[in-house]
Amino acid sequence: MSTVTLADARRVIEAAEKRADEIGQPMNIAVVDSGGNLVAHVRQDGAWIGSVNISINKAWTSRAFDIATKDLGDNSQPTQQFFGINTTNGGKVAIFAGGIPLSKDGVVVGAVGVSGGSGEQDHSVAEAGAAVF
Amino acid sequence: MSTVTLADARRVIEAAEKRADEIGQPMNIAVVDSGGNLVAHVRQDGAWIGSVNISINKAWTSRAFDIATKDLGDNSQPTQQFFGINTTNGGKVAIFAGGIPLSKDGVVVGAVGVSGGSGEQDHSVAEAGAAVF
Amino acid sequence: MSTVTLADARRVIEAAEKRADEIGQPMNIAVVDSGGNLVAHVRQDGAWIGSVNISINKAWTSRAFDIATKDLGDNSQPTQQFFGINTTNGGKVAIFAGGIPLSKDGVVVGAVGVSGGSGEQDHSVAEAGAAVF
Amino acid sequence: MSTVTLADARRVIEAAEKRADEIGQPMNIAVVDSGGNLVAHVRQDGAWIGSVNISINKAWTSRAFDIATKDLGDNSQPTQQFFGINTTNGGKVAIFAGGIPLSKDGVVVGAVGVSGGSGEQDHSVAEAGAAVF
Repeated sequence: MSTVTLADARRVIEAAEKRADEIGQPMNIAVVDSGGNLVAHVRQDGAWIGSVNISINKAWTSRAFDIATKDLGDNSQPTQQFFGINTTNGGKVAIFAGGIPLSKDGVVVGAVGVSGGSGEQDHSVAEAGAAVF
Repeated sequence: MSTVTLADARRVIEAAEKRADEIGQPMNIAVVDSGGNLVAHVRQDGAWIGSVNISINKAWTSRAFDIATKDLGDNSQPTQQFFGINTTNGGKVAIFAGGIPLSKDGVVVGAVGVSGGSGEQDHSVAEAGAAVF
Repeated sequence: MSTVTLADARRVIEAAEKRADEIGQPMNIAVVDSGGNLVAHVRQDGAWIGSVNISINKAWTSRAFDIATKDLGDNSQPTQQFFGINTTNGGKVAIFAGGIPLSKDGVVVGAVGVSGGSGEQDHSVAEAGAAVF
Repeated sequence: MSTVTLADARRVIEAAEKRADEIGQPMNIAVVDSGGNLVAHVRQDGAWIGSVNISINKAWTSRAFDIATKDLGDNSQPTQQFFGINTTNGGKVAIFAGGIPLSKDGVVVGAVGVSGGSGEQDHSVAEAGAAVF
């Protein structure tokens, strides 16, 4: 099984940090492997301390359901099919933008999670990270 | 980095209690430091016991995301960008009025959280506390 | 039913703080009422942040079982009758010195919990607080 | 109050990784700031996934009580003064070797936590990290 090495995670985080610096919003950035387990996390100076947990959980969620958390969020609104999913799994499911799966040959083998700004900013920074995987 | 001393916290709590007395609604009032850790808490006689936890979590939330919980709440409604944030961080994120950051020289170094009345009352009492920091 | 008012809790905390200052060890001090619910908490400047939770739980434990946590600890060692009690109640049971019941006319109506130093120091500071109740 | 920047954390992690490589045991390495909040974490390839949480909690514990987890462990054995401390704070207290405080001018401003090998190995890798702070 393919997965995400620490070297991979560092490359993803470096690209994500670069984007965060460009937009001027300090971020928490986390990368998990194919088992959903944390490979690496950084909190940029000044980033929200409440986003440590969220970045890690966004990454876990994206691998756990092989989906961007932004898209899962669309399905988790009141009356939608996954409404309430964020209280399962001991509260580890994040349903707002910032988590993106990392794939190899069409198979999800990990994920990156970003938290520290608006939903749009978080997703953009995660995209920059995922792009170099 | 600056933080909140116990003397600071007592001054904030005293001002908040005074406002609570004026409006005739007993309150729980909590103050956290720059790391989000509790510095002091009081429950006025007759205040809700279910609000002990909420006051502490409102203070934590305001420091964790450098925002008034009232404003975070606006962004955490269904279809809004942070919908679901209240189930992250082990349930410590409060998304209704009553938490306000405490700042020094433009930097958030702590927060006050109030719970025991309506959202408007809680926010008003927190404001009175924050005003003397 | 008698209980602990905020004025009571402040008197207890003031006496406990005085003792903590005398022995030169900053402390977390918490007081709970007859329902085991927090009335007030202070963390003196420089006291351990890991002791916020412990001071509150020591106070809760002393009221929950109407016993000094020091004595409960003696009964909670391996092979003793309450071994394992500290993993009940969602982890709120503290089994080391620093929690002391507060009584009125022979009935426990609350408790004080202290954490921040050695077991002996914590118990001594709690005693100073309980003495003025 | 001083704290730990991301650059500081990376320097600490780099030195810890070097030691882990020398002894041939892949490790989880975590660094927290003065508030006990995570600044950075890495899991070296092949390191135990069960040690992600432990490394973070060792770092938190060392800052929360300003002590090496090895020394806290000595005081947390049956009949010792802190027996039972590991079930407080929601299970975040680690009482075995691998966490070491990071100090500036004699004041603890953060901590490093290492998990992935024997207690002796974990402590040694944490020491290598702390040495460059």
